[in-house]
Amino acid sequence: MKYTLAVLVENKPGVLTHISGLISRRAFNIESLIAGYTEEKDMTRITMVVEAGDECELEQVINQLSKLIDVIKIIDLTGQDRIHRELALIKVTAPPARRAEIVNIVEIFRAHIVDVNKETMIIELTGEESKIDAMCELFEDYGIKEIVRTGRVAISRAPTPAKEM
Amino acid sequence: MKYTLAVLVENKPGVLTHISGLISRRAFNIESLIAGYTEEKDMTRITMVVEAGDECELEQVINQLSKLIDVIKIIDLTGQDRIHRELALIKVTAPPARRAEIVNIVEIFRAHIVDVNKETMIIELTGEESKIDAMCELFEDYGIKEIVRTGRVAISRAPTPAKEM
Repeated sequence: MKYTLAVLVENKPGVLTHISGLISRRAFNIESLIAGYTEEKDMTRITMVVEAGDECELEQVINQLSKLIDVIKIIDLTGQDRIHRELALIKVTAPPARRAEIVNIVEIFRAHIVDVNKETMIIELTGEESKIDAMCELFEDYGIKEIVRTGRVAISRAPTPAKEM
Repeated sequence: MKYTLAVLVENKPGVLTHISGLISRRAFNIESLIAGYTEEKDMTRITMVVEAGDECELEQVINQLSKLIDVIKIIDLTGQDRIHRELALIKVTAPPARRAEIVNIVEIFRAHIVDVNKETMIIELTGEESKIDAMCELFEDYGIKEIVRTGRVAISRAPTPAKEM
């Protein structure tokens, strides 16, 4: 099963190495990982999607992570009522004759065209993973040159920050 | 100076640990890091923004990274003509009396409201870092409960994938 974890850490070199090392030593696969800014300047928020066998295994990892000195808080967003989104930039082959078709698809998905040249277009799309998957599938027929996806970021719907593990 | 690197790696446990370890051993600070899917199933693309002293230092790191067995390709997107974007989810205090003001700001930034309850709103915004910074600054007066930012993803404008280092 896939689990979404948010780990708040101090913004120091080496923290990411400790965390990814701990997880890969347990042979969990990290599906996606994002380390980005938060509302506090000296904190980084790491959002990870990991594949774990069961909740018991996951709990062990959370326990070990929480023992790391630079980890401030761990939130398991898996079961919680949350919003999750992903951003993708897709470079697709777009000769002039097929541009109109591509523009149509872009409008249906409420995506945006952020660049165009004689051969290609770059499309920006935000949404849940399944929406991005669906768009990529459609564009496969046109020829995809490059895809850059961020992986999942998630935020709990509750007014107060999600409860700590 | 800040540099944007895209590193294509094989999708194996431990790769991220090697890469982040190598960078933090050189005492470079990783500003943001994203490991996400690409157009190939067994590859992961890591987009990093690192702060390095000068180009010479950066070149050394690129050289060392390229020696790692799971690294397929490294692209330095810093000087290239590229598109870069970031996604942010912002939970802001929004009592009914101030909702209209917030909706106005959201429209100006072409952002989207993705959730609302009695006390808060969650806003989704895509753009360059400076745009997200500007919106966060405006919302500070209202009270920001939580920010989740992905950090930068970047794609070169050239029709063919960016040239290898």
